[in-house]
Amino acid sequence: MISKLDLDAESPVPLYRQLYDHFRASIESGKLENGSRLPATRELAGHLGLNRTTVAAAYELLENEGFLTGQVGRGSFVRSSRAPQSNEIDWNALLGPSQSRTPAPVSWNPATISFATSRPSEDLFPLEAFRLTCREVLNGKQLPAVLQLGSPGGYEPLRRYLLSRAAEQGLCQAGGELIVTSGCQQAFDLIARALLRPGDKVAVEDPVYPGLKNLFLSAGVELLGIPVGADGMDTEQLERVLVKNRPKLIVVTPNFQNPTGATMPLAARRATLRLAREHGAVLVESDIYGELTYSGEAIPSIRQLDETGGTILLRSFSKVAFPGLRVGWVMGPRPLVSRCCEIKQITDLHTDQLSQAVLLRFAESGRLDAHRKAIVSAGAERLSATLSGCREFLPPGTRFTRPTGGMNVWVRLPEPLDAGDLLPRAQRENVNYLPGRYFTVSRHEPGGMRLSFAGLTPARIREGIRTLGGVFSSELESARSRGMEPALAMV
Amino acid sequence: MISKLDLDAESPVPLYRQLYDHFRASIESGKLENGSRLPATRELAGHLGLNRTTVAAAYELLENEGFLTGQVGRGSFVRSSRAPQSNEIDWNALLGPSQSRTPAPVSWNPATISFATSRPSEDLFPLEAFRLTCREVLNGKQLPAVLQLGSPGGYEPLRRYLLSRAAEQGLCQAGGELIVTSGCQQAFDLIARALLRPGDKVAVEDPVYPGLKNLFLSAGVELLGIPVGADGMDTEQLERVLVKNRPKLIVVTPNFQNPTGATMPLAARRATLRLAREHGAVLVESDIYGELTYSGEAIPSIRQLDETGGTILLRSFSKVAFPGLRVGWVMGPRPLVSRCCEIKQITDLHTDQLSQAVLLRFAESGRLDAHRKAIVSAGAERLSATLSGCREFLPPGTRFTRPTGGMNVWVRLPEPLDAGDLLPRAQRENVNYLPGRYFTVSRHEPGGMRLSFAGLTPARIREGIRTLGGVFSSELESARSRGMEPALAMV
Repeated sequence: MISKLDLDAESPVPLYRQLYDHFRASIESGKLENGSRLPATRELAGHLGLNRTTVAAAYELLENEGFLTGQVGRGSFVRSSRAPQSNEIDWNALLGPSQSRTPAPVSWNPATISFATSRPSEDLFPLEAFRLTCREVLNGKQLPAVLQLGSPGGYEPLRRYLLSRAAEQGLCQAGGELIVTSGCQQAFDLIARALLRPGDKVAVEDPVYPGLKNLFLSAGVELLGIPVGADGMDTEQLERVLVKNRPKLIVVTPNFQNPTGATMPLAARRATLRLAREHGAVLVESDIYGELTYSGEAIPSIRQLDETGGTILLRSFSKVAFPGLRVGWVMGPRPLVSRCCEIKQITDLHTDQLSQAVLLRFAESGRLDAHRKAIVSAGAERLSATLSGCREFLPPGTRFTRPTGGMNVWVRLPEPLDAGDLLPRAQRENVNYLPGRYFTVSRHEPGGMRLSFAGLTPARIREGIRTLGGVFSSELESARSRGMEPALAMV
Repeated sequence: MISKLDLDAESPVPLYRQLYDHFRASIESGKLENGSRLPATRELAGHLGLNRTTVAAAYELLENEGFLTGQVGRGSFVRSSRAPQSNEIDWNALLGPSQSRTPAPVSWNPATISFATSRPSEDLFPLEAFRLTCREVLNGKQLPAVLQLGSPGGYEPLRRYLLSRAAEQGLCQAGGELIVTSGCQQAFDLIARALLRPGDKVAVEDPVYPGLKNLFLSAGVELLGIPVGADGMDTEQLERVLVKNRPKLIVVTPNFQNPTGATMPLAARRATLRLAREHGAVLVESDIYGELTYSGEAIPSIRQLDETGGTILLRSFSKVAFPGLRVGWVMGPRPLVSRCCEIKQITDLHTDQLSQAVLLRFAESGRLDAHRKAIVSAGAERLSATLSGCREFLPPGTRFTRPTGGMNVWVRLPEPLDAGDLLPRAQRENVNYLPGRYFTVSRHEPGGMRLSFAGLTPARIREGIRTLGGVFSSELESARSRGMEPALAMV
């Protein structure tokens, strides 16, 4: 029914998803009839040379979407009710194939050490300061206005505060404006809707944040991946792509890029700005990690260097405060920000005002600064534990980046290790991470993987990397011993 | 430079916007040179036979977008800096013309009686109950999880609560799922992104909520307006359109439709469901006013009537609680909701969790029900004041709807009155409303206008309608006396 040849281990599409797609197509086309039994996960995994967890993830997804029904002790059966009644909507046909490239859910286990999410640590949330801040907002005269319908541009006191902070930092050039967004993800969405049409080309870092890649791909945009080195996006490659492909937009993350953690030096920022201007490309600077500098001096943002005010800057409270409160903002030229306000209005009217008011008070009161100091200090320790863990525990030949801030380290395992294939083994040993395929634009590195360290204590970080080191080293050993088997004559 | 002939009073594009478009085009094309002086607002208004506020609104927009610079005592000048430097981005060319059809901002005046926004009254917000609710959330064990990154589907305790309430109401058919959205506006956006492509056809009520119209138009969708009568969307017209135009989607508001306030009787709901199913159209039921029933029995929702579970139902806390907290939800078939979750993830990751947790507690504690009783009682009084005001003060020949709930009454002024042309006069007398053009799909009624009454006390409502009655009656009188002037011979 399915052979190894139907699956492509090199594809950026995860294997479980390929398997899901294969079965779904067979069910929808009628090749797999209603009520027919699928092989057991163990059996199919053996047949395809896959991990059982991969097969189980595919089955789970099929079941979640109603293509399969599981019967304890009997197996999984194609669901007859999927076939729509004559006058019912065929939802799967109507929706078309999923574009989603998000990781399969991993069953939650408190023992799991997860490097999979780039987010702050719950343990460091300053709960008392947060409660105090909320009480101040609740007792403030502004409360009725906070609870009432607001403006697409954002809660006006927060907008004014952010604009005055921006002016202090030389970010508020003539004609500059600001819109509050529901986090940075929405900022990217608004910019894409304002500026991009299907078929447009956008230069992005490669590897890049999956939320950016998925958004732009779903908008029908062609992504041009620019490699990221120790100094961030490679400006020589960028120039080549600008000349050859003429992208409309460049998205760059000068500080502690996700996933590599790389930071662009001043000269590279200037070069990027110059190149964008020379080639008439719009420059978007994503800077949600910029305030998490653990060592070295902060470098001016590209928008600070851009005296024309044309660079679009994205910032957010998510990484320095509370990601559950969705508040970010975009600073850019007035026409662009006006258009984003119009789109914001049809998208979700405006950003939640309770969170805007609470974060404004958190910032104004100085509590945000105090909290930032605490997480910068904790982040430095966690980064250091991550780097020392990588040095000590990962197999020889492993390379990894040396960020000076942010939340992520990018690891490249030595050949022939494949971080995607090894993930199920790591998960069985209660360690989770995101393999490179989620970040790949055009240069897939099978050994690439992201370690997001900010949510874990130094001790858990070292324990997790030690476990990963064990998995990777044993696999490397057996791969090498397999590699030494004499090649058989072809017959 | 501009003549009356350049403007179209019949167009759904407001006059101030037409004026803006005209000047902007002239500036961009170079017809109006940098530094040239525009006529004073009073002068141009006289020349064009427009209200001065219309001209001022156009100038203000031009100034906001950087096309004009105003100099006190000297006038308004075309801005030389608009002409981009050779290597700067030409934002206006890049962004293309604005699609926005939102009302011009009216300068805020505490004396203004505004019927322009369909929102609850700030004065009725139960601030103590809200503070108590927040304190409970802040002191709860879940606080760190609330502040942490969440899930695209919504804050799980809120999702479970909404699903169990839905099950009690017979809304949770087999295969039904729920996603929490940032208000109903985002629900429409996610559904449009999941199901619609440019050129697709959608049947909507005519007149319709402007946020729906603007969203669908910006998605490149063709809108088919179905007239709304006293019994809501006209199902006979709907059938004709289904047969002739084969729309992919039907959006219907069975309870207290915005702007007409109309409610569909049970038979019309059943007919709509049957028609949608017969013609293979997806049915979206918007129900954000449903809980604001002031008289009569609640009628089952279409989703309750739909045993296949195919109807997509939209609800929200905005109208019954606090619109500044952006929390709504979509219930629908699992494949559609799954796809909406995928899109939600690339759109804004997830809805703000502080507001989700607070609204959950507000609902669970019974405080939402208590508040709803209070606003239903106040709403009934306000509706009654609106209807009696319309009867007493509006000129003979005026027709208006008789809703039994919700926040809006739809008024049709007698010919030849144009609610759009009369708005500046009403605004000068400190009364604001939205004229019909914002709601029109294809049947423009010049006399149509929406009175959103929920935010005003009965006394203010009567005062406002009395003022409107004065404006409209005097205009009607002078229009009729103009109409009686003898026609001159053509020479």
